[in-house]
Amino acid sequence: MAELTNRRIMVAATPEGELSESHFRAEDGVAGEPGPGEVLVRSVLLSIDPANRAWLQGRTYREQVRPGDVMAGLVLGEVVAENGAGIPVGGYVTADGGWQQYAVLPAKRVAPVEVVGDLTHHLGVFGMTGLTAYFGLFDVGRPAAGETVLVSAAAGATGSVVGQLARIHGCRVVGVTGSAAKNEVLTSRLGFDAAIDHRSPTFADDLREACPNGVDVYFDNVGGPVLDAALRRMNTHGRIVCCGVVSQYDTAAPAAGPDGVPGLVVTKRLRMEGFLVFDYAKRYAEGLASLAEWVRNGSLIELLDVVEGLDNAPRALMGLLAGENVGKRIVRVGPDRL
Amino acid sequence: MAELTNRRIMVAATPEGELSESHFRAEDGVAGEPGPGEVLVRSVLLSIDPANRAWLQGRTYREQVRPGDVMAGLVLGEVVAENGAGIPVGGYVTADGGWQQYAVLPAKRVAPVEVVGDLTHHLGVFGMTGLTAYFGLFDVGRPAAGETVLVSAAAGATGSVVGQLARIHGCRVVGVTGSAAKNEVLTSRLGFDAAIDHRSPTFADDLREACPNGVDVYFDNVGGPVLDAALRRMNTHGRIVCCGVVSQYDTAAPAAGPDGVPGLVVTKRLRMEGFLVFDYAKRYAEGLASLAEWVRNGSLIELLDVVEGLDNAPRALMGLLAGENVGKRIVRVGPDRL
Repeated sequence: MAELTNRRIMVAATPEGELSESHFRAEDGVAGEPGPGEVLVRSVLLSIDPANRAWLQGRTYREQVRPGDVMAGLVLGEVVAENGAGIPVGGYVTADGGWQQYAVLPAKRVAPVEVVGDLTHHLGVFGMTGLTAYFGLFDVGRPAAGETVLVSAAAGATGSVVGQLARIHGCRVVGVTGSAAKNEVLTSRLGFDAAIDHRSPTFADDLREACPNGVDVYFDNVGGPVLDAALRRMNTHGRIVCCGVVSQYDTAAPAAGPDGVPGLVVTKRLRMEGFLVFDYAKRYAEGLASLAEWVRNGSLIELLDVVEGLDNAPRALMGLLAGENVGKRIVRVGPDRL
Repeated sequence: MAELTNRRIMVAATPEGELSESHFRAEDGVAGEPGPGEVLVRSVLLSIDPANRAWLQGRTYREQVRPGDVMAGLVLGEVVAENGAGIPVGGYVTADGGWQQYAVLPAKRVAPVEVVGDLTHHLGVFGMTGLTAYFGLFDVGRPAAGETVLVSAAAGATGSVVGQLARIHGCRVVGVTGSAAKNEVLTSRLGFDAAIDHRSPTFADDLREACPNGVDVYFDNVGGPVLDAALRRMNTHGRIVCCGVVSQYDTAAPAAGPDGVPGLVVTKRLRMEGFLVFDYAKRYAEGLASLAEWVRNGSLIELLDVVEGLDNAPRALMGLLAGENVGKRIVRVGPDRL
C-alpha cells in the first residue's frame, strides 16, 4: 500500500476559559497500517458535539484528552484496509477515530453501519444523537401523552430530535434556544408548540406563558440559569432529564448550581436523573427501529449543519459552543467514496 | 363543659433570617367546643420538625403559616370531647393541632392511634419520622445489601432511623453530623459503621476515608455544602434521596445550589429524587409493620429528645435548627392522662 498522508488536528493546550484555535494544531502525519485484528478507517464525516469540549477539560466518563493527543471525536468512515479483523474493506463504520483523515483501530472499537438513507443520519438521528434523545426522553423522562415537555438547546442535534419525539408521543412541546431564528425553525418546521429565547429579558414570563400547565418533563441540555428557571415551573412529580451542561463546558468558572436544588426537588417531589446513551447499548436496535420508522414516514426530520473540511473542525466546535449551529453539526472530512 | 383555658403560641412575625423568640407570642385563649363532626383534642406531645421553619417562610407543600396564626405542628393528643365524629373520647390521635393545649378539629383531620409501646413512638419511629426514613430509604434510595449508604443530620429524628434501617438491610452506613458527641452515639449505640463531622476542616478527607468504596445512596437531610461534598463521592448510578434542606431553612439568604448539579449528575448518571412521606399514605401499614417488628426485636432504637412545656416550643425549634438535639425532638405539652 502506498504511504498515505494523514492530516490530523492535535490538542495543543488544555483550555483555560473559552476555547480558541490556539488550543489546536494541524499537522500532516502518515497513516498507519492495520496490525493483526485491526482496520484502517478513512474518515468521511466527523461528529461535533458539546461533550468534545468537556473531554478537553478533565476526566468525564472518559479520560481527559490531553495536549499532544489527536483530538478525539466520533467519525463515520470507510474501511480501506483490514488485517484479519473480519470487517470488509469498503464498508462503513462509526468509531472514535478522532480529528484526522485516517485511523488505525482494533476491530472491537469500530461499529459497522448498515446504511439507511443519508450517511449523515448515522452520526445524527440514527447515531448517538438520536439514541440519546430516544432513551433520555422515553426511559428517563417517561412523558405521558398530554404532558408538557420542555427541552433546552432545542435547535441542537439532540434537542431537535427530543422535541419531535415528544410531539410524536402526543405531548405539548416547548423549546428553549438562544435566537428567534432558531425558534422559527422549531415551530414552523419541526412542529414544536412554542419556542422561547433564554436571552430575552422576559424569559421567565415567556416560559410561564408557553407552559400554562407547568412543565412535566424538562430535558436539560444546558444546566445553568435555564435549569434554574425550569425548576421553578416544574409540576409536582416532574422529571428533569440531565443530558448535558453545554452552558458550562466552555468556561474556566462554571456557574453556581441551581439554587432550587435540593429545596424544590423535595417540595415538588422531582426526579432529576442523569444518563449516558452508552448505558442503553443493549437496546440500540429497539431505538433505531423506532427512529427509522419515524424518519421513513416523515414525522421525524433531521436538521443538519455541515461544515466542510477537517481544518475547520476547531472553529466548528467553537461555533457549536457559542450556539451558532441549527441541528446536528458535522464536519465533512472526505468524500463518501474515493 | 366548663370553659377550658387554651394556652397557645402564635406566630408574631415572619422571620427574616435566623428564627428567634420574637417571632412567636404566647397567649391564653379559650378552648372551643366541637361542632358537628368535630373533636376536641388535648395536646400531649408536640412534634418539633425542621419543616416547621420552612412553613414560616412561604408556601411549601402547605400554605405559609402567617403572623396571627397559631403556629402549626403535629400533635399527639387525647380526644376529650366529640360531637358525632365517631371517634371515642379518651382515645389518642395525631393531628395538625398546632402549638396549643387544645384544638377543635374535623374528624377527617385526625388519625386515631393504636398505641404500641411508648406514646412518643407515634410521633417518632412509628410516626412521620419513621415512615419518612422507611419509604425514603427503601423506595427512593433502593440500596442493595453491601452498598454504602451515607446519611446527613444522622443524629436527627429521621437520619437516626435511616441509618439503622440501612444497617438492618446489610449496608455499610456512614453518618454525617455536626459534633463528635453525636457521632459517638451513632457508632456506639446505633451501629453506624462510621460517623463524621461536617464542621471538621478535614471533612472532605474524612468522607473519603469513611467511604472507601464511594457512596451508593446518599440520604440528604441538609442540602448545602454536605450535598456538594457527597456529589463528589457518589458512585456511578448512585442515588440521592432529597428529604430535606435543614441547612437552608433558618436563613434569609439560602446558599447557592451545589455546583456539581447537573454536571456530576450527568457524568455519574445519578438519580436525585425528592419525596414527601404523604405520597406513601396508602402504604403506611406496610411501613409500620416493619418498623414495629424491628423495634420489638431490638434492632431499631428510638433516640428521644424531650423538651418540657409548651412555652419552650419556640426555643425547642430554634435549638433543633441549630442542631442541638440528639434524636427525635418532642415538646411535652401535657400529661398522658389528666
